[in-house]
Amino acid sequence: MRIAIDAMGGDYAPRETVKGAVAAADDGLEIVLVGDRQAIGRELCEIGADACHVELVQADETIPMGEPTRTAVRRRRSSIWIAADLVKRGEAEALISAGNTAAAMAIATVCVGRIPGIDRPAIATVVPTLSGQAVLLDVGANVDCSPANIAQFAVMGTVYAETVLGIKRPRVGLLSIGEEEIKGNILTRSSHSALAERGLNFCGNVEGRDIFSGDFDVVVCDGFVGNVVLKVSEGVAEMTFRAIKQEVSRSLLNRIPMFLLRGALSRLRAKMDYAEYGGAPLLGIRGVCIIAHGRSQARAIANAVRKARQTVEGDVVGKIAGSPLVAGLVGKTNGAQEVL
Amino acid sequence: MRIAIDAMGGDYAPRETVKGAVAAADDGLEIVLVGDRQAIGRELCEIGADACHVELVQADETIPMGEPTRTAVRRRRSSIWIAADLVKRGEAEALISAGNTAAAMAIATVCVGRIPGIDRPAIATVVPTLSGQAVLLDVGANVDCSPANIAQFAVMGTVYAETVLGIKRPRVGLLSIGEEEIKGNILTRSSHSALAERGLNFCGNVEGRDIFSGDFDVVVCDGFVGNVVLKVSEGVAEMTFRAIKQEVSRSLLNRIPMFLLRGALSRLRAKMDYAEYGGAPLLGIRGVCIIAHGRSQARAIANAVRKARQTVEGDVVGKIAGSPLVAGLVGKTNGAQEVL
Repeated sequence: MRIAIDAMGGDYAPRETVKGAVAAADDGLEIVLVGDRQAIGRELCEIGADACHVELVQADETIPMGEPTRTAVRRRRSSIWIAADLVKRGEAEALISAGNTAAAMAIATVCVGRIPGIDRPAIATVVPTLSGQAVLLDVGANVDCSPANIAQFAVMGTVYAETVLGIKRPRVGLLSIGEEEIKGNILTRSSHSALAERGLNFCGNVEGRDIFSGDFDVVVCDGFVGNVVLKVSEGVAEMTFRAIKQEVSRSLLNRIPMFLLRGALSRLRAKMDYAEYGGAPLLGIRGVCIIAHGRSQARAIANAVRKARQTVEGDVVGKIAGSPLVAGLVGKTNGAQEVL
Repeated sequence: MRIAIDAMGGDYAPRETVKGAVAAADDGLEIVLVGDRQAIGRELCEIGADACHVELVQADETIPMGEPTRTAVRRRRSSIWIAADLVKRGEAEALISAGNTAAAMAIATVCVGRIPGIDRPAIATVVPTLSGQAVLLDVGANVDCSPANIAQFAVMGTVYAETVLGIKRPRVGLLSIGEEEIKGNILTRSSHSALAERGLNFCGNVEGRDIFSGDFDVVVCDGFVGNVVLKVSEGVAEMTFRAIKQEVSRSLLNRIPMFLLRGALSRLRAKMDYAEYGGAPLLGIRGVCIIAHGRSQARAIANAVRKARQTVEGDVVGKIAGSPLVAGLVGKTNGAQEVL
């Protein structure tokens, strides 16, 4: 299997992307690092990688974090575009980028193409719940959505939960601010009918608190709200752990029990650290695309590679495209509502 | 001081509202319980309250949690309306309701009236940060907002942070999904100019993670997003504490250090439990109105009474109305954009 990595994308690129890629490459996996050949080569030398499973492909341009999608998507010599093009041409099975999310999403969509029936791809994240895991989408690809987009996210999330999490007939919830159908904003109130008619296991509104309850397997929302949810979760978990440390270190006596618990707490912290854990697949395009966190370090990139491999091996794209739920959407999509 | 409580509002009303009210009443404070006189009387008997600081006012109707605002706001014989009317007529200094939030907000607005310059009142919550506290608003009063609404929330939040939290020149952040001005949805991208022109200390976008960083004193967003943030925070904090318990109880050896830490952890948990802690003021109306959590039990109601007292004593309403920032809005408000 070959996986293309945008080596220039992310706050710690290319050093950490290269380190992570080398760590993840093994006998069954070839990594293609796309970017400035010299800069990547320097990093490879520095870490003393034997590079037998790593290949370099030159890209002259890097899309900065703040560049608007409209101009970013035209940069065909950028590392994101060239990596996406490898997937399009069948020279790589998956694409990973920790760079400008909006640009990566737009380029993957334009270059690799969408699955028929899907207007807009969505970024899906697996979040921990009290009883297992749930899929939350969209977490950032589409900031302003229509009810039809929300219903398509629900369909893709359902297929993902079935395929990757092994959940039968996943329970779908619409993120809103009250359980009753009339509660919510214009978008959520008008999404109910679209969600009810798709043959989904739609179970109504889910409130923010209950995303983690285990009562829902798929939670859908627009990408603005989903991204806020993801980052607020990160912030609260981080604050909780810091506050535990602060509270405990007030008294010397507490330090001993805290020391004894450090193993349990760090295991827990790793579990809560899902936002950085392995990146999130961009569902709805005709290829595997993993969006990694902008702050990804080597470990996160290596996890993203594993996630990409798992998504390829599980044939998530084929299963979404072949799902009767998605087939039912073909012809109903809104051609005018383009991604750009 | 007299405080009117909607005794029939909330999941545990009237039992818990009555218990909380009785617990909070003291020599300097008279509580007016509004609702079904018989039901309230029964609760008073049961807890054996001497009721010397508690007065009963009859209301024939109770607005259910799911009732739409449009019909709820016409119910002039409801406990929320009658409590609000006491504030309007100067017979009570503050109103507290744990009932239907949208109804309470609409009735308070229609019955008590808005502060000139403010189109829509907003619910403000004080959240803990790594270095202190911040004001987050709106957390549920207005699900679909305009840039002008957002700017008014920023003005009210600034006055609240100055008055109640004692912060000089509070730093205002706009909740979005990236630091750059171009990041966000239609609402956030178009709110920048309104926020920049008000004489506020506007410091740009704040991401979900950084609400708790201590880098901002006031965080503004629409009420849908704010409500989701509030409830996600609750959910994550709850899950973290539960997961700590689970992780620790896997091994018998861990139980001893956990036992030693229980004091520190429960203090921390109380700090994180801000969503239920004392209710949140509805800013922008011409009177003090505290919106308590629908799941409020006696302790939360008693805290809401303290919050109401603090808001009255701090003259928050007078200070918002008298602020040059708000005075600058008079005449600029959008009359067509009514609350209902």
